[in-house]
Amino acid sequence: MGIVVQKFGGTSVATPRKIHDAARKVIAAKLAGKQVVVVVSAMGHTTDDLINLAHGVCPNPPKRELDQLLATGEQVTIALIAMALHAQGHEAISLTGGQIGLLTDSAHSKARIREIDKRRIQKELATGRIVIVAGFQGITEKGDITTLGRGGSNATLVALGAVLKAEVCENYTDVDGIFTADPRIVSDARKIDRISYDEMMELSSVGAGVLQTRAVEFARKYNVPIHVRNSAHEGPGTWIVAETQAMEHIVVSGCALKKDLTRVTLKNVPDRPGIVARIFTAVADEKIIVDDIIQNVLDDRTANISFTVEYGDVADLQPVIERLLAELGGSATYEKDLARVSVVGVGMKQQTGVAGAMFRALADAKINIQNISTSEIRISCIVARKDAEKALRAVHAAFNLGKKSPA
Amino acid sequence: MGIVVQKFGGTSVATPRKIHDAARKVIAAKLAGKQVVVVVSAMGHTTDDLINLAHGVCPNPPKRELDQLLATGEQVTIALIAMALHAQGHEAISLTGGQIGLLTDSAHSKARIREIDKRRIQKELATGRIVIVAGFQGITEKGDITTLGRGGSNATLVALGAVLKAEVCENYTDVDGIFTADPRIVSDARKIDRISYDEMMELSSVGAGVLQTRAVEFARKYNVPIHVRNSAHEGPGTWIVAETQAMEHIVVSGCALKKDLTRVTLKNVPDRPGIVARIFTAVADEKIIVDDIIQNVLDDRTANISFTVEYGDVADLQPVIERLLAELGGSATYEKDLARVSVVGVGMKQQTGVAGAMFRALADAKINIQNISTSEIRISCIVARKDAEKALRAVHAAFNLGKKSPA
Repeated sequence: MGIVVQKFGGTSVATPRKIHDAARKVIAAKLAGKQVVVVVSAMGHTTDDLINLAHGVCPNPPKRELDQLLATGEQVTIALIAMALHAQGHEAISLTGGQIGLLTDSAHSKARIREIDKRRIQKELATGRIVIVAGFQGITEKGDITTLGRGGSNATLVALGAVLKAEVCENYTDVDGIFTADPRIVSDARKIDRISYDEMMELSSVGAGVLQTRAVEFARKYNVPIHVRNSAHEGPGTWIVAETQAMEHIVVSGCALKKDLTRVTLKNVPDRPGIVARIFTAVADEKIIVDDIIQNVLDDRTANISFTVEYGDVADLQPVIERLLAELGGSATYEKDLARVSVVGVGMKQQTGVAGAMFRALADAKINIQNISTSEIRISCIVARKDAEKALRAVHAAFNLGKKSPA
Repeated sequence: MGIVVQKFGGTSVATPRKIHDAARKVIAAKLAGKQVVVVVSAMGHTTDDLINLAHGVCPNPPKRELDQLLATGEQVTIALIAMALHAQGHEAISLTGGQIGLLTDSAHSKARIREIDKRRIQKELATGRIVIVAGFQGITEKGDITTLGRGGSNATLVALGAVLKAEVCENYTDVDGIFTADPRIVSDARKIDRISYDEMMELSSVGAGVLQTRAVEFARKYNVPIHVRNSAHEGPGTWIVAETQAMEHIVVSGCALKKDLTRVTLKNVPDRPGIVARIFTAVADEKIIVDDIIQNVLDDRTANISFTVEYGDVADLQPVIERLLAELGGSATYEKDLARVSVVGVGMKQQTGVAGAMFRALADAKINIQNISTSEIRISCIVARKDAEKALRAVHAAFNLGKKSPA
């Protein structure tokens, strides 16, 4: 019997009524002959409410305790989904991250999954039950509760899909799928029917909000198809799958925006072997993601090193930087109000001229490019925060990604 | 170093401000040189809110799932208390019932504690940390979350006091201690300074709300003193301790009321050996507490059996009764709107005439007694619900328990 893993995000389980709607989708899969595992997020704004509650008690709460607090959000939802299924006449059992043995490292608030003990789930599925799993959470070997960071329920979804060898991971959200750009910013953005894991990873890493990069990376590694779809209707969404030959013709699949970046510049740090590694290891130890690294050598002995981080990580980053400067010498500046606009497409591997077309589109819109970074299938430009949305629209139009354009 | 276990009930942790107040009491004990373990309940009306949420999703939620849901309430509080202690400059760690290995049976919603693995707590105390434990919850050997029933946080408090060999279990509430009667009903009720475990157990079992009978039973078994005190001030409350010779002179220590009782009568059931055991074993299997049992033999073959239960247990009881009647024959009636008024005192063991004085007080108040039950240190009378409060006041006055009376 095939296994389907479904995930319902916070907006899809925000009220008792929506919980019953989600339960109906679960039952439909069960009645279609599948074994169904369901991953759920906290209801609506619960996680934000809990964070606010924590900050009302402690300005800088210990991360272990914040995880202990936040994990309750998903635990509430799993119990309620199991109850809704019971009310609709189906047997279900809810399981926390700890109860499915979802072991993580001990990086509280940004933990990584190490393994899942699938036996409890398989045992429950074998009795005909629907299994409801709390997303976003795990436990350490010591038994401490961890959370997997922003979008962590998707990590749970894909990890379960992989260990259970699921036919598909269905990611139910409040949008119709993955779009060529954020439709709230670009009015004629078009839904993408199929996209490769690589493209999706690049789009996620540069700001497309629906799926975390590492969830997609995990899906690619285990070749689990993800179907991103809208919980409000039955229509197909976007399938995220292995790359096919047909995809090579798509030069640009989509574009994305990351707002609220901060550029950190370390000035006059010693320019000798190992210093850069020292800096970025210290930053990585805090699980802060860094991009757009530039090193300018000033003279024989010193260099300026700059990079961008998300504004939300600056508070965690500052003490690290201060420790580094105390050790290495030099000073630091922080420039806020930056953004990054990116285009992604597997066809770039074969086709030249994509970068030029992007720079021309931004120049025509009178937007200054402050930095450029690229991968094999992505080009990104740092621009001022105030130009961010205009830049996205300009690029989207330049590559004819809109609804009225030929797909 | 001595260990103090403190417990804060829901009203004492209802807001971030009250959580900080509780944290200050914890720190005071720590600064007084004690190792401190803190047990907390869910904030304010959280448990009731979660029950309402559950009933909004499922009219009769599976008890396992209800426990999964309700246990989040205490998990929120432990994290917030640990954060408040951190904000006030003290190291603390929060632990769920599962994390301290509080093993229970699998009677969801009314589970009983089997054992506590104290090693994790002792390890954390040894590092100088304050340990915050979620009350009211445990886990089964399978790893399912259970709750301990009404007042279950007190069971956690006393069980921890016993396994950790604590100097005292401090039970912080929103009242000054144990009173000679409920002060909301009897205006001149007086706070009791010291009371024996036995008296407290009897008072709890007949309606004094502060402590569960089995929490006190456990404290008696391990001889752990309980100090019931008000979290709003520093004054002493009521000490619950082993019986002393001085206590023998107290004929009546206090009186209590249990409202909302239902009398169940099984009519025309067969009168043969083993039937009564069959009935009450079936009821006990549902963990429903039964009292005031009366058997009337009707003829050679049949009898009427009646008993009282709390109104809240009737929904769980009815299917049991129906199964019994299907097996044994006969019929059942349910009389609502009954109450029980009781007087308790260790001095009754030596002194006669207490029952007569109680019956006279009720007769003088023109209250009809429907049934009488007694123990060595308690006398209880079933009265109509409408007479309940008048009965309590009459009995309280008859035994001179008020503030103006000689203690």
